[in-house]
Amino acid sequence: MTATPFPASVYAARLERAVRMAGEAGLDAVIVGPGADLRYLLGVQGDTIERLTALVLGPGVQTTVVVPRMELAKVRDTAAGALGVRVADWVDGDDPYALVIETLPAGRPRVAVSDALPALHLIPIAERVGVNLELATPVLREGRMVKDAAEIAELRRAGAAIDAVHRRMREWLRAGRTEREVAADIAEAIVAEGHETVEFVIVGSGPNGADPHHEVSDRRIAPGDVVVVDIGGAVPSGYNSDSTRTYVVGSAAEESAERIAVLVRAQQAAVDAVRPGVTAAQVDAAARRVLSDAGLGEAFLHRTGHGIGVSVHEEPYIAPGNDLPLREGMAFSIEPGIYFAGEWGARIEDIVVVTADGCERLNVTDHALRAVG
Amino acid sequence: MTATPFPASVYAARLERAVRMAGEAGLDAVIVGPGADLRYLLGVQGDTIERLTALVLGPGVQTTVVVPRMELAKVRDTAAGALGVRVADWVDGDDPYALVIETLPAGRPRVAVSDALPALHLIPIAERVGVNLELATPVLREGRMVKDAAEIAELRRAGAAIDAVHRRMREWLRAGRTEREVAADIAEAIVAEGHETVEFVIVGSGPNGADPHHEVSDRRIAPGDVVVVDIGGAVPSGYNSDSTRTYVVGSAAEESAERIAVLVRAQQAAVDAVRPGVTAAQVDAAARRVLSDAGLGEAFLHRTGHGIGVSVHEEPYIAPGNDLPLREGMAFSIEPGIYFAGEWGARIEDIVVVTADGCERLNVTDHALRAVG
Repeated sequence: MTATPFPASVYAARLERAVRMAGEAGLDAVIVGPGADLRYLLGVQGDTIERLTALVLGPGVQTTVVVPRMELAKVRDTAAGALGVRVADWVDGDDPYALVIETLPAGRPRVAVSDALPALHLIPIAERVGVNLELATPVLREGRMVKDAAEIAELRRAGAAIDAVHRRMREWLRAGRTEREVAADIAEAIVAEGHETVEFVIVGSGPNGADPHHEVSDRRIAPGDVVVVDIGGAVPSGYNSDSTRTYVVGSAAEESAERIAVLVRAQQAAVDAVRPGVTAAQVDAAARRVLSDAGLGEAFLHRTGHGIGVSVHEEPYIAPGNDLPLREGMAFSIEPGIYFAGEWGARIEDIVVVTADGCERLNVTDHALRAVG
Repeated sequence: MTATPFPASVYAARLERAVRMAGEAGLDAVIVGPGADLRYLLGVQGDTIERLTALVLGPGVQTTVVVPRMELAKVRDTAAGALGVRVADWVDGDDPYALVIETLPAGRPRVAVSDALPALHLIPIAERVGVNLELATPVLREGRMVKDAAEIAELRRAGAAIDAVHRRMREWLRAGRTEREVAADIAEAIVAEGHETVEFVIVGSGPNGADPHHEVSDRRIAPGDVVVVDIGGAVPSGYNSDSTRTYVVGSAAEESAERIAVLVRAQQAAVDAVRPGVTAAQVDAAARRVLSDAGLGEAFLHRTGHGIGVSVHEEPYIAPGNDLPLREGMAFSIEPGIYFAGEWGARIEDIVVVTADGCERLNVTDHALRAVG
């Protein structure tokens, strides 16, 4: 058991904001299931999917956490204990939904739920309440999207830890080894450099790099391979790192090197576009335009980035069509990539935090194609 | 990328059964989101939470998988490719819900969703369809609960792998080391002994053993400590192991040793109660009765067990009130425990598979309190 990463006053303020925003949105109550929202609000993630843990809050509600008795100790160690949040515990065989329902106002309340609440719990609750449940995204994302100074310090710590791993890449990445062998060494280093957990290790060599969500395989890395290495973990406070660099074993074909140079410019263009008031879509467009102008628009298969914090992927999403204006304290990835099916791929990714007049990059290792092996 | 663990014909049969059972339940369609249900039906888990991957099937529906284009390669490698399942792919900025909706019959269809489908996707789909969605649990659990011979072989392989780790426990578990240090060695051995992933490592020493969901801490293990070690992982096919043994560093206090002897009898009583036709609740009661008769009923805080397969926790749950009759091929844990807050705890856990006239234990290391250190 680790204690919560921040003092109870931080969670008190987060809960207070969520209650206030729920009221402003006209909601009577918000039900927060296990996952990143719960971790953000209470300092505890909630455990198994099949046993209900839920935080109920809102203007018409006494803030209550419904929790299996066997996980009570975890909740007592958190802000819930310090803040006097009401605890309603239950044991296998009890009806946990009744504990949620009795917390809600009578009548036909307006109730919203957290994004991650699974159907397994959502549907029985909806049936009992007898109203259509709404998504609490607009209420809950507000706090999570904009990071305070202590959160930014944790993201900075995570960024430095993952940079330290990328700096050591030549220790592991060389011809003749399999992606899986390299990934195992990287995973060990992710922990050794200061993370508590390894969240993902992608080593995409040669043609495997052309699949943006390839993880690892038993493919043996060959001389001349372009290799995408996308890695991240969580530091003890739960905040995540996520950084991608593209390496070449020996030296790259001229065309590949030229295309990767364009990608580096595209990534920088998006970083340069970040400032308060600019929309997420505009940052996405900045990267996309550089690639399109060089005839590589079709090779960029995904959005430019995703928010990061107590989860690896969260709002704001830096994607076409997202007209959300950026605000100081938002943290997200900038990670354009280019993919040539059956041949090779490349991606460059930094986490940035929006500042008063631009952004701070939390990953500062060199962007250019790096030769190893 | 690993290929699917079973031949395409296995997935064809699973899909066919799901479609047939959906029809028998009067459903028009079932929407299966990422998670264990998708892995069971298609051989692929589905990746990120925020980008929708969904399998749509049912009597009135052309079986379709909706998938982000960047994950298309993974789906093509699976049964979907071999079975000619229709693929509807989308890119960031598209509307994936439209792809789901256009697959459904017109009018007001009866539609059910998988347990794990998060609110983030469930609520927009429900709003568009304009009907109340139901849980597909009764349709989907049927296939997953009853394991065929190939699945039992995989669970047996996983059981042997985790037994091999428990047999080596004295290499790592001794006084002076922290729980976290011991857990790191165990995690390495879980992979070395044949698992592909480490799913969980619980090392609960002394008072930490009294919290059934304690994971690890920096507590240093002391002479005389009773230590609960609950560990599991997934073998390459995705099937899971899960086995708990209770150890003592040196020798235990007499009262603890006596209570653990009762626990061993309680666990055996539940194992002995397993056979087709007996209910899950009756198996739970068998363990509970032995503990209650010895005055330890209050110390047993949780249900007796959970199903296991491509997920660590699934149906059937061996819990009070669950009148589900056991059937041949069901696989689940039998894991009573006793917990004394602030002092110590103990738990003994085997995975068992229901046979024609009883059950097969997949974990066969000794149940008695084992001295180490």
